[in-house]
Amino acid sequence: MDLSTGLGLAFGIVVLCTLILMGGDLGMFLDVHAFIVIFGGATAATLIRFPLSSLFHGFPLGMRFAFTMRRWTSRELVEEIANLAEIARKQGPIGLEKAEVEDTFLAKGMRYVADGYDADFIRNNLERDMDNFCVHLDEGQKIYRAVGDCAPAFGMVGTLIGMVQMFANMTDPSKLGPFMATALLATLYGALLANLLCLPIADKLHGKLLDEETNRTLIIDGILMIRDSKSPALVREMLLAYLPEKHRHEEGEPVPA
Amino acid sequence: MDLSTGLGLAFGIVVLCTLILMGGDLGMFLDVHAFIVIFGGATAATLIRFPLSSLFHGFPLGMRFAFTMRRWTSRELVEEIANLAEIARKQGPIGLEKAEVEDTFLAKGMRYVADGYDADFIRNNLERDMDNFCVHLDEGQKIYRAVGDCAPAFGMVGTLIGMVQMFANMTDPSKLGPFMATALLATLYGALLANLLCLPIADKLHGKLLDEETNRTLIIDGILMIRDSKSPALVREMLLAYLPEKHRHEEGEPVPA
Amino acid sequence: MDLSTGLGLAFGIVVLCTLILMGGDLGMFLDVHAFIVIFGGATAATLIRFPLSSLFHGFPLGMRFAFTMRRWTSRELVEEIANLAEIARKQGPIGLEKAEVEDTFLAKGMRYVADGYDADFIRNNLERDMDNFCVHLDEGQKIYRAVGDCAPAFGMVGTLIGMVQMFANMTDPSKLGPFMATALLATLYGALLANLLCLPIADKLHGKLLDEETNRTLIIDGILMIRDSKSPALVREMLLAYLPEKHRHEEGEPVPA
Amino acid sequence: MDLSTGLGLAFGIVVLCTLILMGGDLGMFLDVHAFIVIFGGATAATLIRFPLSSLFHGFPLGMRFAFTMRRWTSRELVEEIANLAEIARKQGPIGLEKAEVEDTFLAKGMRYVADGYDADFIRNNLERDMDNFCVHLDEGQKIYRAVGDCAPAFGMVGTLIGMVQMFANMTDPSKLGPFMATALLATLYGALLANLLCLPIADKLHGKLLDEETNRTLIIDGILMIRDSKSPALVREMLLAYLPEKHRHEEGEPVPA
Amino acid sequence: MDLSTGLGLAFGIVVLCTLILMGGDLGMFLDVHAFIVIFGGATAATLIRFPLSSLFHGFPLGMRFAFTMRRWTSRELVEEIANLAEIARKQGPIGLEKAEVEDTFLAKGMRYVADGYDADFIRNNLERDMDNFCVHLDEGQKIYRAVGDCAPAFGMVGTLIGMVQMFANMTDPSKLGPFMATALLATLYGALLANLLCLPIADKLHGKLLDEETNRTLIIDGILMIRDSKSPALVREMLLAYLPEKHRHEEGEPVPA
Repeated sequence: MDLSTGLGLAFGIVVLCTLILMGGDLGMFLDVHAFIVIFGGATAATLIRFPLSSLFHGFPLGMRFAFTMRRWTSRELVEEIANLAEIARKQGPIGLEKAEVEDTFLAKGMRYVADGYDADFIRNNLERDMDNFCVHLDEGQKIYRAVGDCAPAFGMVGTLIGMVQMFANMTDPSKLGPFMATALLATLYGALLANLLCLPIADKLHGKLLDEETNRTLIIDGILMIRDSKSPALVREMLLAYLPEKHRHEEGEPVPA
Repeated sequence: MDLSTGLGLAFGIVVLCTLILMGGDLGMFLDVHAFIVIFGGATAATLIRFPLSSLFHGFPLGMRFAFTMRRWTSRELVEEIANLAEIARKQGPIGLEKAEVEDTFLAKGMRYVADGYDADFIRNNLERDMDNFCVHLDEGQKIYRAVGDCAPAFGMVGTLIGMVQMFANMTDPSKLGPFMATALLATLYGALLANLLCLPIADKLHGKLLDEETNRTLIIDGILMIRDSKSPALVREMLLAYLPEKHRHEEGEPVPA
Repeated sequence: MDLSTGLGLAFGIVVLCTLILMGGDLGMFLDVHAFIVIFGGATAATLIRFPLSSLFHGFPLGMRFAFTMRRWTSRELVEEIANLAEIARKQGPIGLEKAEVEDTFLAKGMRYVADGYDADFIRNNLERDMDNFCVHLDEGQKIYRAVGDCAPAFGMVGTLIGMVQMFANMTDPSKLGPFMATALLATLYGALLANLLCLPIADKLHGKLLDEETNRTLIIDGILMIRDSKSPALVREMLLAYLPEKHRHEEGEPVPA
Repeated sequence: MDLSTGLGLAFGIVVLCTLILMGGDLGMFLDVHAFIVIFGGATAATLIRFPLSSLFHGFPLGMRFAFTMRRWTSRELVEEIANLAEIARKQGPIGLEKAEVEDTFLAKGMRYVADGYDADFIRNNLERDMDNFCVHLDEGQKIYRAVGDCAPAFGMVGTLIGMVQMFANMTDPSKLGPFMATALLATLYGALLANLLCLPIADKLHGKLLDEETNRTLIIDGILMIRDSKSPALVREMLLAYLPEKHRHEEGEPVPA
Repeated sequence: MDLSTGLGLAFGIVVLCTLILMGGDLGMFLDVHAFIVIFGGATAATLIRFPLSSLFHGFPLGMRFAFTMRRWTSRELVEEIANLAEIARKQGPIGLEKAEVEDTFLAKGMRYVADGYDADFIRNNLERDMDNFCVHLDEGQKIYRAVGDCAPAFGMVGTLIGMVQMFANMTDPSKLGPFMATALLATLYGALLANLLCLPIADKLHGKLLDEETNRTLIIDGILMIRDSKSPALVREMLLAYLPEKHRHEEGEPVPA
């Protein structure tokens, strides 16, 4: 569970409800027109923009991954892999079968090693899995960004439609208020969809994509080293050396000022 | 048929009609002024921006390609080419003549092989075809993007012209409503043309251009290998090895979470 | 004559006049205030932005080149050069003097060859000409783009000045209309100058710059090959091989779908 | 203490207060709605955008570093390191223990040298510290920039919410004023948060990040040279040679015009 | 004196005054509120954005350099250096002391040669001068661009503050005019500061930075060749060969169409 995504969304909803309830009732801010134009318009534009297969894979994967989190940092992952290397050295590859591994990708690799597949098969299969996963995660990121980019425009479209209807039927200017309020809701929905939901999620997915690429490459390298019966110390040292700077020191060592 | 483009457009039109009919009649949203300023202005700016020959080739090709789709993914294409290699090995190049090939580009290459042209001739002709096609597809993408970029500006121009006429003739403020509604239509048309039609189509064409470059390079390589009487297994293996990561695993294998 | 630039401008003017005349008279849209702020402001900012020499060379060259067009495509140019190589081989360099060459740059090179200048002299002179030309064309493109970028801002400046004067003198709100109409004209002028004239012309000049660099490099290479008495067939083959993909197949061969 | 950040903030507050007090009382510009929407919205979006750990490290480090300043320029740092080399040569590494070094990063390195750690240990430890520091500083910069990018959008959201409530409850247009004033405050808060605080701080942090990377690399190189008992003159010369151009002449030598 | 900067500014002021006087008196456009918010706000944000030392060096240097101009083009500079090489060959380095050299940077180099400093010293000193100069010019460019980027935002801040005060105190809508006029002045000031002054000056400084880098590199190379007693012809030829294309043909040779 990625706490900050959930916290952020919950906090955003609380903020919105507080604001709305401070100045009136919630119903004033619900409007089926605005809902149709924003969600309908963004859906239509996104359908045209991407192939169907990207949408089916990227959209739900992106949403799921924005809320879930790798249990370990790169550094902990290296320790975990070194532990597995220790087990493999003491008990042989068979021992890996009984090891409990939470990360599904690492677990899959361990099973391959325990089953005695050769290195090429393992590398090919895991790399295909990883490519497949990263392509879908990147598609997810692009879809959320595309929705975030067009939502404000459809907000404006909704408000314009509302204003055209309002002005065309205008007989008594003093009755414009409620119509204007409704027309503005579409712009509000568009701004919220873009700035509170889609663009932040696209940014988070982009960060996660970079992290997963590092971590899965790390896991593949580690698994192949375990298959070659490298010593746990060597596994740890080589994996740490491969880490890009950013991941080498993720733990909060005190920062010298 | 590219389902998502058609679906998206149809859905967009349904959304717009629903919104319009919920708040009044459709006629209120039809205005010849707004139509002239958006389509006339965008046409004028696009004519100045591009050479005539780009417009004639790129515009219709782009529209056609946004709605059509390659029948096979890269992976299926490799299988198809491997099948053709099988036929060529069993029946000789002559056998290719009778093979049914749906993709016109692949079919053309097969005919060349069946007719016994030499490798240089085949490569030159197919690469020229492919370059020609990709140049026109890229021009199409640029034209749709340029129209999408200038449409909102011409929407503003149309609204400004309407407002100038409205204010200049203003005698009774209470009669402003219908004029204002008409003036706003140009901005609405511009936003819809850009965000619902042109920019999404430009994005889709960009994605298709990348895919077609991969697929046609694949076909050319495959055809030349068949002409050199390579074994079907080798053809399949080498073509798969050439595929960029993204295309290697297009099929929806279950994504490891 | 570049048809599309002229057509686009003419069409843009027709569209504007139609719109204006449909809603009133033309005089309503002419305002000396708006004219001064847009053209004065854009001129002032452009003077500060560029050195005087760039403005003197780039501005008129850009305008001229947006409307003129190279008579031949790269492919035809290669044929023309091959014909000249044929003449040179049959009649000797002297024969080139009598050959009619429409392109002034090619003609200049031919005269150098006919006069028997050495290859270094010819290359240096023609490259200097070409650099000089491309630098000025690029300056022209940058100037039109800079004007197009600042014109909407000066449109806003003009409208703000008009609104400040209107509000400061406001006594009777019902008389605001005509003042407001005039104030909005500056924004209208700025949007038109940018989106109908300057930005499209800058884009077209950018495309022409890329084409001219290819064509003039082609001409220089061809002239030097003629001076070295290469055979026409070799000239044609080598020049075609040098062409970047895009220019190799400019002619509209049927596009395979 | 980085004078310009403090001065800028103080000056900004003075300017705002002056403006506000010239036209009324301060209370008119305080509004809990606007405060909630801007700070709540920006917090929610930032929580979604970044992982919690980046927020905890990057945010306070960025704020602290925007206001503090390295006491020395790169050039002075080279002198300081050369002085320490002098001490190390005269008194042995032990002498470094008593040397007073203000910069905590340099001090840490000196302690390592005095304690006789080997070069690899020193380099590894200091580089890990430096990477760690730079990653957090970069995260800080990105967080401030992300807040600055979304604050105006939440300002618009706040104003839209206010206007919807205002229009929905509108009975007497003449009483709209105070509601409108309150609604506009959110836009004002958003613009100030972005343009007066977050974006300038992000820019300053970006500049400091570049400087710190240079300076800490310089310190690590210098400490290792001192550990190798290089002569002070050589240390000075080599460190100056490593400096990128910009840092070589930071001192205000008269600029030739 | 860089004519175009001065001309542009003068022309811009004339345009503004004409517009203002055509529609009323100048006093209507002077407002201390707007002045404070634009200049105060931009100053505060710029102080936070840059270190004090950059501001002290870059700001005045940028302003000075926007208005001054190198007396010679690169081509003329080569001639001047070749003339000095001629003098040095005829009269020995001593002769350079009496040569009148207007360019202060070239003059400084000549003095070094006349005084018999060795090549390393001369190169080091001149390169340090040049780096120093270019760093400050680049800082100047960045400062003007940053001011130009934030000025419109502070214009909006000023207008928002004015509108909040206006709406909060609104009792009689018919008296809103003068308050609205004043509020809009801040937006007007911001747009003018950005589009008429800061952004064009930043663009001009960017162009000058590129030119000065070329010219000063040219001067340093030339001075070192003179110190090595190279022949004037060789100096001219080598310097011309070093020139980037753009500077080789600055003089207005007739452009072939």
